[in-house]
Amino acid sequence: MAVVLKGSDVAKAMKEKMSADIEQLKAKGITPHLGIMRLGERPDDLAYERSAVKKCESIGIKCTVFQYPVEMTQQELIDEMKRLNGDPSIHGILLFRPLPKHIDENVMKHVIDPGKDVDCFSPVNVAKVFEGDNTGFAPCTPEAVMEILDFYKIPIEGKNIVVVGRSMVVGKPAAMMLIKKNGTVTICHTRTRNIEKICREAEILVAAAGKAEMITGDFIGDGAVVVDVGINMNAEGNLCGDVNYAEASEKAGYITPVPGGVGTVTTSILARHVVDAAKKAGGLS
Amino acid sequence: MAVVLKGSDVAKAMKEKMSADIEQLKAKGITPHLGIMRLGERPDDLAYERSAVKKCESIGIKCTVFQYPVEMTQQELIDEMKRLNGDPSIHGILLFRPLPKHIDENVMKHVIDPGKDVDCFSPVNVAKVFEGDNTGFAPCTPEAVMEILDFYKIPIEGKNIVVVGRSMVVGKPAAMMLIKKNGTVTICHTRTRNIEKICREAEILVAAAGKAEMITGDFIGDGAVVVDVGINMNAEGNLCGDVNYAEASEKAGYITPVPGGVGTVTTSILARHVVDAAKKAGGLS
Repeated sequence: MAVVLKGSDVAKAMKEKMSADIEQLKAKGITPHLGIMRLGERPDDLAYERSAVKKCESIGIKCTVFQYPVEMTQQELIDEMKRLNGDPSIHGILLFRPLPKHIDENVMKHVIDPGKDVDCFSPVNVAKVFEGDNTGFAPCTPEAVMEILDFYKIPIEGKNIVVVGRSMVVGKPAAMMLIKKNGTVTICHTRTRNIEKICREAEILVAAAGKAEMITGDFIGDGAVVVDVGINMNAEGNLCGDVNYAEASEKAGYITPVPGGVGTVTTSILARHVVDAAKKAGGLS
Repeated sequence: MAVVLKGSDVAKAMKEKMSADIEQLKAKGITPHLGIMRLGERPDDLAYERSAVKKCESIGIKCTVFQYPVEMTQQELIDEMKRLNGDPSIHGILLFRPLPKHIDENVMKHVIDPGKDVDCFSPVNVAKVFEGDNTGFAPCTPEAVMEILDFYKIPIEGKNIVVVGRSMVVGKPAAMMLIKKNGTVTICHTRTRNIEKICREAEILVAAAGKAEMITGDFIGDGAVVVDVGINMNAEGNLCGDVNYAEASEKAGYITPVPGGVGTVTTSILARHVVDAAKKAGGLS
């Protein structure tokens, strides 16, 4: 049976480090502060918001939710974002996406201050992830994957790594981060042939396909490290990942559960981004 | 023996298409115009400049070389670039890199107008390549790779593709472009273990390692498509690629030569970017 890579242990260790940073900041009169911009009340946004606010506040990060009507115009949203960009008390800005159709993300992403863009919306931060430049903010989920591998001391260099999924939210940035750490990375997707065979040869498998339990036991090599990024509902209406946990854990050496794996760490990464932004603003990094 | 994928045939077809576009532009009183910014006289810059100017002028694209002393300050370069950004007669800007050490590329890349950035210097264009968004300008060399595959009707979808090299100039953008075309892409590099075996399994192999003839016959699967991006000198002082051509061509199905392969197409891509920028400026696209 595979060793379970628990997100809660990773999050706990991150919290300890962040608490020390936050103490330092508070000694300088700075409280790290996240501004959350939300249009309307999409259930996904509300769920993530609840968990982000809970995580942040538990560590001592202030959160302010700016809720707007979905009918808000693009110009109004631009003005609001500029106001938050210019507000020195706010260190990080999270704008929930997708945006309503009448607002162009391609416009908005150029408005956000890259230094406050804690969820990698700005092209400046996107380009840095591609380049392997650590001075920006990466998307929180793939960074959570890296944090878990790092916490559990899973070696990456020279490993044969397969990433299933090519989204900008997880798959592609995860691949870039793994390459930066000297992994040999294969990116698979819906059009990949022989995907089972390719995955089975992976020493580290990152499942970010967004498809409930598609990674069955046949995809898993003996002793592989399996990181499951998926959050789905299965046929029984239960929360599940992209990996069939029961089957995979029979063959894998290490596996992240869902829930309790990557998702648990993601909001900690968001919190750390806010702390890092506050440190930079306060001249502490 | 492998079929030779000749760059000259690809460049010729591109020239025909571009000529039609340029005629249309000239009918509107617009001459596509590339501004080349060069500090000092590095031999590599001069060689590329000669070949770019020759290619552009042969098609009817005007080129102006702005030559500056290497001692030029960063602020002077910023001012010059802003002048070119603001000059409506200039549609594309190519700034030779690497820049002298006293000038920060990380500053300059934010100065260039993304709409004139025909060699993918701006983070806006870098991010678009990562995202698979074709509305920007990709780096010329990996786009030349794609153009060759397209011209010779080499299928990409579902193919097992290996890219050797992870640079921002070729390897990583080539990988993103191949993923966009639904290839299954593995990125190898200096830390990859069993690189011969991984390469040998590739249906399409893109060699962009920057190491003379490192891809020997043992790296080539029977019938593979081999695209050689390298431009090096071998021990005998002759121009050669990253691929040992004599050995590889015995096993490959298709292969690009060096010289006469990817390099021949690269300046055509640059020229097309200038034409595309001029079309956009002239409201023709």
